[in-house]
Amino acid sequence: MPNYRLTLCYDGTRWKGWQKQGNTDNTIQGKLETLLSRLLDQPVEVAGSGRTDGGTHARGQVASFRAKTDWTPQEILAGLRQYLPADIGAISLEEAPPRFHARLSCVGKTYVYRIWRSEDPNVFERNYLYFYREPLDLDRMRRAADRLVGRRDFRAFCSLKKFKKSTVRTLESINIEDLGPELRLTFSGDGFLYHMVRILVGTLLAVGRGELEPEDMEAILSSGDRTKAGETVPACGLCLEEVRY
Amino acid sequence: MPNYRLTLCYDGTRWKGWQKQGNTDNTIQGKLETLLSRLLDQPVEVAGSGRTDGGTHARGQVASFRAKTDWTPQEILAGLRQYLPADIGAISLEEAPPRFHARLSCVGKTYVYRIWRSEDPNVFERNYLYFYREPLDLDRMRRAADRLVGRRDFRAFCSLKKFKKSTVRTLESINIEDLGPELRLTFSGDGFLYHMVRILVGTLLAVGRGELEPEDMEAILSSGDRTKAGETVPACGLCLEEVRY
Repeated sequence: MPNYRLTLCYDGTRWKGWQKQGNTDNTIQGKLETLLSRLLDQPVEVAGSGRTDGGTHARGQVASFRAKTDWTPQEILAGLRQYLPADIGAISLEEAPPRFHARLSCVGKTYVYRIWRSEDPNVFERNYLYFYREPLDLDRMRRAADRLVGRRDFRAFCSLKKFKKSTVRTLESINIEDLGPELRLTFSGDGFLYHMVRILVGTLLAVGRGELEPEDMEAILSSGDRTKAGETVPACGLCLEEVRY
Repeated sequence: MPNYRLTLCYDGTRWKGWQKQGNTDNTIQGKLETLLSRLLDQPVEVAGSGRTDGGTHARGQVASFRAKTDWTPQEILAGLRQYLPADIGAISLEEAPPRFHARLSCVGKTYVYRIWRSEDPNVFERNYLYFYREPLDLDRMRRAADRLVGRRDFRAFCSLKKFKKSTVRTLESINIEDLGPELRLTFSGDGFLYHMVRILVGTLLAVGRGELEPEDMEAILSSGDRTKAGETVPACGLCLEEVRY
């Protein structure tokens, strides 16, 4: 059966995240499977590069699925664009090599977390920002970020209680951009644990406020203790920017 | 009583426009009056620079109101920011000269209309764009725009059936920007009639499609006949950018 690679964007505000839950249509994966199964007249299972949380957005999520059909990729793409709701967009669709799998073939991802620090309103992007008012020392945050980058066990930066698999990941870079009212944090790595980016941001904010020291990062990492890291910041500020293969 | 000038932005998607209707709280003006009356513990009437339609947005709407209060303008602004919903933003508030009135003192306005011409999705700005797929000849549209600019009777570009007041306005400029997938039309003038910008856009699109000729503009203007002009395009693409005094 031909294998397809689909690139998606979505505004996650009203969705319960990527991963389907039962037979409900309130997840991105569930919505896609329902729609593709109906369009192509066969049961279609969609694999995503990874889950995104409820309320989290994507500019470049990648999914793969197999289907036997006479439709060309351009026709499937046009069908998706016709029937997807306005907050899910199909960017591209092409036939993929037989062994391509959106999750298993993934070699890296980039997430962006956007923080709005100003009292000035931003009504038009309100669902894509974390509104945050306390003063932040960016130099301290950058020094802490430098200590988090690398191949490390990120168990302390993960919300799961039970770990069947390795929690070692390579965090390739953390970039902290001061864009006036907006503070933009960009995370690239070979993979991310459940809530990992949101806990990394919460920890960096605690450093920026002065509640944690940049030098505390090593002890938090080696503790493997979730309670030593910062809070899990809201999902709405987070966007899956790019998936690499 | 002190007089105040308030500058606002709003995402008009879920609002029934600016002007209050009865005692309901589903208009921007109604929401502001309810909130200011409660904050300042007195009945407050808010005048806007003009009405915006349901679904139309603003980046720089201006309103004025009078109130007798010990609160400083900064304190009133902070109160508004605390209690306004996330899709209405208070940009600034200052005391105004006694005779300042948001509508009567206004000498000019700028509106922007945004059109998304690409098949590529734009999920994040979907509520601020008119999705439009037909090919457009921008050169023809610009030649038509040149014929609409000036001091003219815009009765043919107004949805009202009965006219008690003059329908003569000065349209100072129409700027048509080709921003790749986005086409952005900017209108500046001393005042705009009901639906005037949306009908101007609909007429320019009809010229861009080849259904009307640039040379038809004079005849449409002099006819004063609404049915000769183009359609009223959707409210969601429209934004009140700036009000001048």
